[in-house]
Amino acid sequence: MLTLHYAPNTCALASHIALEHVGAAYEIVRVDFARKEQRSLEFLRINPKARVPALVTDRGILTETPAILMYICQSFPDAALAPLDDAFALAQINAFNSYLCSTVHVAHSHRMRGYRWADDPLAIAAMQKKVPQSVGECFDLIEHEMLQGPWVMGERYTVCDMYLFTLAQWLEADGVDPGRIPKVSDHRRRMAEHPVVSRVVAAERANSP
Amino acid sequence: MLTLHYAPNTCALASHIALEHVGAAYEIVRVDFARKEQRSLEFLRINPKARVPALVTDRGILTETPAILMYICQSFPDAALAPLDDAFALAQINAFNSYLCSTVHVAHSHRMRGYRWADDPLAIAAMQKKVPQSVGECFDLIEHEMLQGPWVMGERYTVCDMYLFTLAQWLEADGVDPGRIPKVSDHRRRMAEHPVVSRVVAAERANSP
Repeated sequence: MLTLHYAPNTCALASHIALEHVGAAYEIVRVDFARKEQRSLEFLRINPKARVPALVTDRGILTETPAILMYICQSFPDAALAPLDDAFALAQINAFNSYLCSTVHVAHSHRMRGYRWADDPLAIAAMQKKVPQSVGECFDLIEHEMLQGPWVMGERYTVCDMYLFTLAQWLEADGVDPGRIPKVSDHRRRMAEHPVVSRVVAAERANSP
Repeated sequence: MLTLHYAPNTCALASHIALEHVGAAYEIVRVDFARKEQRSLEFLRINPKARVPALVTDRGILTETPAILMYICQSFPDAALAPLDDAFALAQINAFNSYLCSTVHVAHSHRMRGYRWADDPLAIAAMQKKVPQSVGECFDLIEHEMLQGPWVMGERYTVCDMYLFTLAQWLEADGVDPGRIPKVSDHRRRMAEHPVVSRVVAAERANSP
């Protein structure tokens, strides 16, 4: 049994979708960010980084979305969510996921979590102000250089699609007009209609306060 | 033949060390950041993200350090730089590398590249001011929770060691006292003495202006 510690509206959604897609035996545990539960001693024993996702396995706990996604791909090879034996194709997937975690998600985080990188409230406000531009530029690059279509990696549906869908959920709140990135928007619409994805989104909603 | 586009004192060092370690046939091409060569049309055709590293292979171009490192591991399995067939152990490596790219490197980037996330010069100065704290906290976590010793993953030497060494090169410039993190500092010293690492560091130095 796997246990995914998650919070609604976070990047943990990508791992949640992947677990559901492969038919894993798993349960979800919601971490209540409103009550700062991620900073509780109990949760810090699960993830000292005070973040979600964290996936509890019978061998130990895994964190970081790209690592959890690849773990699910490798543990459930029949689902074929990544070209595991093709070093170049797999590296393209890892590169895309790495860009999402290190650049796109980070640009987004400057809207709500600027305190990580500055103490001055005016600096934090200045960061928030730039989010529509910085996130917008990331998605422009995804639109024009990365999303091959119909899926991120072309004809093959992979974990990159789950991760992109997850971060694209934040576009409007980040002040980016989805109309500016029609391929990403169409991808998001098709993902939302996927039975696995809509089941997971509904489950997170039902489990919310 | 592989071609690594790099710049001195960047995270491309990790990929450079890995290529040298596995005995790959490769050449290096320096991108001159002082002349903003990473923003030239020529380089943007190699990496539209205007960053290093970029690895040119016979199948196409790869970017993002975690992806390039895993590509090298998988392409040169005899070097045994990652436990490729153990999904959990490999996920631990991916999680560590993901933390370095999405949190540690990002904290560091607020010293020199604050303009990515704010336009106001005062905000950029406020970001610079917090770097010793934010980078220091990342390395505290590595020191106390992640670096198993003697290598990052315990007895096994992996690409995580190359990547950690690379980011640890920036500690002093980021205002973090290496004395506060003795395990990381000892790891850095042992890495610097490794013949492969010292050869690569010397090659980057010799190729500098």
